[in-house]
Amino acid sequence: MKIYFAGSIRGGRQDAVLYETIIQYLKTFGEVLTEHVGDPALTSVGDDGPSDQFIHDRDLEWLQTSDVIVAEVTTVSMGVGYEIGRAVEMGKPVLCLFREGAKTNLSAMIAGCEAINLVHYSNFEELKKPVQQFLFSLNVL
Amino acid sequence: MKIYFAGSIRGGRQDAVLYETIIQYLKTFGEVLTEHVGDPALTSVGDDGPSDQFIHDRDLEWLQTSDVIVAEVTTVSMGVGYEIGRAVEMGKPVLCLFREGAKTNLSAMIAGCEAINLVHYSNFEELKKPVQQFLFSLNVL
Repeated sequence: MKIYFAGSIRGGRQDAVLYETIIQYLKTFGEVLTEHVGDPALTSVGDDGPSDQFIHDRDLEWLQTSDVIVAEVTTVSMGVGYEIGRAVEMGKPVLCLFREGAKTNLSAMIAGCEAINLVHYSNFEELKKPVQQFLFSLNVL
Repeated sequence: MKIYFAGSIRGGRQDAVLYETIIQYLKTFGEVLTEHVGDPALTSVGDDGPSDQFIHDRDLEWLQTSDVIVAEVTTVSMGVGYEIGRAVEMGKPVLCLFREGAKTNLSAMIAGCEAINLVHYSNFEELKKPVQQFLFSLNVL
């Protein structure tokens, strides 16, 4: 299974360590195409490619070839929203993870979209079961 | 011409007055479906509908019926990113407006997308000409 993990880069890197933990867990189920999103060396300058067009086109190709999108949506990010929007319009399965107690308000466009599976959680351990259940339900493992 | 204007709601309302100015200008070219985005009474709680699903489905229907999407992308917003992503995947014309000198870093998914027309500006007066040129180029006026 090819998994596209989406997390904030230029929107803020405060959750980078959490992204890395989630990515390592996702790797027990398949290939994570966007493993660099969890790299603590990647800052909010977002220089994970030689140009913005290179980054966009590479990430879009990964999105198109992926079987499922898993997005951590607590840190507000324009890019994560864009990736979710394109994935939903493509008809791909999308799982969004939102941390309770955060200071951000989850967008109604994410919370109110019937095509998106949304999990509220307070710590990583709580994520494991719903993530596993979602991935197993796709029948591509 | 039906225009979908996208601006941050739950991502932060610091640019609400600017949104209202842009919306009033856009109304000289056609109908702005999302006029409430510029309402200064609308806060980042984002209660512009009875439920998140109502807000999502209403906004998505507007997005689908619109001829063009104009998005102010300076304030980071998950919902604006989502709307842009869905619109690009639908093949709709998208114009994004980013204010120079802001503290935010524009996402590579917006700045690097060839299907998106991006205008950098420093004040509203500078926006008028490129917005007019873009809308005239669509041949739906």
